[in-house]
Amino acid sequence: MTTEAKVAAVDAYLAALNAGDLEAVMNLYAEDATLEDPVGSDIKVGKAAIREFYTGATSMKLQAERLGDARCAGSEVAFPFAVTTTMDGTTSTIQVIDVFKFNDEDKIISMRAFWGPENVMV
Amino acid sequence: MTTEAKVAAVDAYLAALNAGDLEAVMNLYAEDATLEDPVGSDIKVGKAAIREFYTGATSMKLQAERLGDARCAGSEVAFPFAVTTTMDGTTSTIQVIDVFKFNDEDKIISMRAFWGPENVMV
Repeated sequence: MTTEAKVAAVDAYLAALNAGDLEAVMNLYAEDATLEDPVGSDIKVGKAAIREFYTGATSMKLQAERLGDARCAGSEVAFPFAVTTTMDGTTSTIQVIDVFKFNDEDKIISMRAFWGPENVMV
Repeated sequence: MTTEAKVAAVDAYLAALNAGDLEAVMNLYAEDATLEDPVGSDIKVGKAAIREFYTGATSMKLQAERLGDARCAGSEVAFPFAVTTTMDGTTSTIQVIDVFKFNDEDKIISMRAFWGPENVMV
């Protein structure tokens, strides 16, 4: 998978989150993908579980913005971004680093999201 | 391992790189640690191989600067940073994301560095 294709997948992912476009998010994932968000929590396995996870995320209004280069290496990419949401009039921003691993069909086979409570700014 | 200890390890790592202090870097690693820099390259196993890797890095003058939050999650931390070096009068900066995994003694048991040629700015 080319670096350009990996960066395009990252930007398509953030655009899909911003648009609340569940199908566009799901289109990036392989059938047998795993998702660990945050790292250390139970790993979601397969597209049904991943769809359930994103159904919540794409039903709320949020802004996702890349904060620096997408770092491509091997079959993976890591990228820093911020997610801003407003609930009940309170705006909060989380600084996250996601790591995507891709399979031979250029689909995400593994997603791991690094963030903790200390990365939430209200 | 507390979040504070993980962030302190990240900042100690960057300070040691800035100071060219090989022993301070090595002190952060477990005996049986692995290092993959960049991700996708051959994995270095054990402190002797890791020491050899950092002997080069700590013998050159460089500036390492964290570019945003250290994201702590589970037994791991991911953080974005930039490394600036000057060789033969040419200054270049690389945007990197490192992922450290810690063992029960709060030592780095796995280090993975995400960066590629596209992340080098001259």
